[in-house]
Amino acid sequence: MRIGLTALIARATVLSLIALTFGAATLLSEERNAGVLESWNDGAAKRAIIDFVVRVTKDGGAEFVPQAQRIAVFDNDGTLWAEQPLYFQLAFAIDRIKSLAPEHPGWTTTEPFKSILAGDVETALATGEKGVAQIVAATHAGMTTEKFGEVVDEWLANAKHPKTQRPYTEMVYQPMLELLLYLRDNGFKTYIVSGGGVEFMRRFAEDVYGIPPEQVVGSSGVVTFEIGDGGKPELIKQPEIEFVDDGSGKPVGINRFIGRRPIFAFGNSDGDLQMLQYTAAGNGARFAGIVHHTDSDREWAYDRASHIGKLDKALSEAVTRGWSVVDMKADWRTIFPEKR
Amino acid sequence: MRIGLTALIARATVLSLIALTFGAATLLSEERNAGVLESWNDGAAKRAIIDFVVRVTKDGGAEFVPQAQRIAVFDNDGTLWAEQPLYFQLAFAIDRIKSLAPEHPGWTTTEPFKSILAGDVETALATGEKGVAQIVAATHAGMTTEKFGEVVDEWLANAKHPKTQRPYTEMVYQPMLELLLYLRDNGFKTYIVSGGGVEFMRRFAEDVYGIPPEQVVGSSGVVTFEIGDGGKPELIKQPEIEFVDDGSGKPVGINRFIGRRPIFAFGNSDGDLQMLQYTAAGNGARFAGIVHHTDSDREWAYDRASHIGKLDKALSEAVTRGWSVVDMKADWRTIFPEKR
Repeated sequence: MRIGLTALIARATVLSLIALTFGAATLLSEERNAGVLESWNDGAAKRAIIDFVVRVTKDGGAEFVPQAQRIAVFDNDGTLWAEQPLYFQLAFAIDRIKSLAPEHPGWTTTEPFKSILAGDVETALATGEKGVAQIVAATHAGMTTEKFGEVVDEWLANAKHPKTQRPYTEMVYQPMLELLLYLRDNGFKTYIVSGGGVEFMRRFAEDVYGIPPEQVVGSSGVVTFEIGDGGKPELIKQPEIEFVDDGSGKPVGINRFIGRRPIFAFGNSDGDLQMLQYTAAGNGARFAGIVHHTDSDREWAYDRASHIGKLDKALSEAVTRGWSVVDMKADWRTIFPEKR
Repeated sequence: MRIGLTALIARATVLSLIALTFGAATLLSEERNAGVLESWNDGAAKRAIIDFVVRVTKDGGAEFVPQAQRIAVFDNDGTLWAEQPLYFQLAFAIDRIKSLAPEHPGWTTTEPFKSILAGDVETALATGEKGVAQIVAATHAGMTTEKFGEVVDEWLANAKHPKTQRPYTEMVYQPMLELLLYLRDNGFKTYIVSGGGVEFMRRFAEDVYGIPPEQVVGSSGVVTFEIGDGGKPELIKQPEIEFVDDGSGKPVGINRFIGRRPIFAFGNSDGDLQMLQYTAAGNGARFAGIVHHTDSDREWAYDRASHIGKLDKALSEAVTRGWSVVDMKADWRTIFPEKR
């Protein structure tokens, strides 16, 4: 009995070590696909994802991709978490304006603040680029990066989504959480590449998605280095936008931050088109996927005519090029995670 | 005998698994320090490095730092590889101007090209910021990022350092290669944070330093995304400088690209001062180090009065704050790696 147990441990550990040596993910990839992506119905999208991962991780296979090159990029708003009825970062900015309003009496009579304080976001946003820049400057600047992080943390801990009354960090897509895990289990490095603010997203990406700060690429404002009171070095967020990581900015951001062309990309709107094109145009096996919001009961249904997350050109190109289009209603068994 | 062997394997593998579970680097860190940093003489700098690493990796210790937060940043020019008699990227640009000159007959009569072609780099650089911008534009733009990479590769494969006649990629510091490895063996993520061009450094950082493209932070030019001939998406390098990752730009670049404050930083000049200040000012154990070029026989000797790699303010601050100053002549047993 004792010898049997020892032998069993030895066998198990030797197998583990072999697997570790040769890359567990690669060796065991086929066996591991049983039970993965559980919240995905067994449709074309799920099959295309698994097929792709098996092909690029099959050691010695024609389409094998070395682990270091397995870069997967994901848009955030509408791809990893919801974006209706308003981008969540905009909801943060609005809440922030409301909480700062007592210190800014002039806001009650000045656009875009006046309309935001009156609850009329549409009119506020109709002020255009200049108005949006004013909102960003008032809510995302004039403090250290550390202080901003604390402000975001507090909002994430307390704010509730207006429709579901759940914390925003629970408005993430369970099937995409499983996809991120599945890719990482197969040696992929998963990145966010989003139009959202990089300093905003980094406050929850690690906890919620398992994506560390250094794997979050996003829009950013100017930051300056200053020696503050008492000789303490500080990074101060300035009110100017520096980089917009959307549309053509996405492949540019990927090149600048990651320096490798991804082999796997997922988006949901026309703002992701160029990232998908850039990814798909590389040599060798590539995966380009789009989340199509088709479920008005469990989430929202919108595409070509939507203000937020407009999916028009990218949907047409996906059809032309044979990219995977996830039909949220048909493909996803679950949308949001269980309540915690 | 057979049982004995099985039991032995079982013991060894169980220990391995325990080590893997709890982090081999942490468990074994003290044993592993025998034989590390072999090209370092046993002086204050080597002892300070090992002492720091042992403290932050000691599980349960007062100064333990979780692996994800073990970010180490290194300047490149003068810290990881040499920078005399000219920054190597400038040598690349000069060689590139010479090879492109036949296509640009006007250069023989126009500064800064005229002086470069006449071998008078000093006069060329005396044209100042405008001249440098022209050199960068002529040598680092007007092509796809992929094509630029190929040009750099070809130069690295063929160019020789004027003093040693060795390839530039062999003008790296053996003690720093060992330090990079030692840190990675102890769970650190090693980054380059350099004033050098990010697309230039990424061509050799992985091979030479074991630092992948996504862990190289550097200066960059504007890049645009375009759909080229035949519908192929391309990234085109434009002749405008976008971000200078030097001086105050270094902590700004760290914040933007990495999103975490490093706990370990190494530089060699005043351009690294702010990165060192930012790193050292964080809470908990921090290491700030400076390579002081003191060896005119085996390398070069320069500091406060040098045009290239001027080390003045940072040297004074290192003394004031007790940062580690590596005396190259005394601390390094070897400077460059054996010839390959």
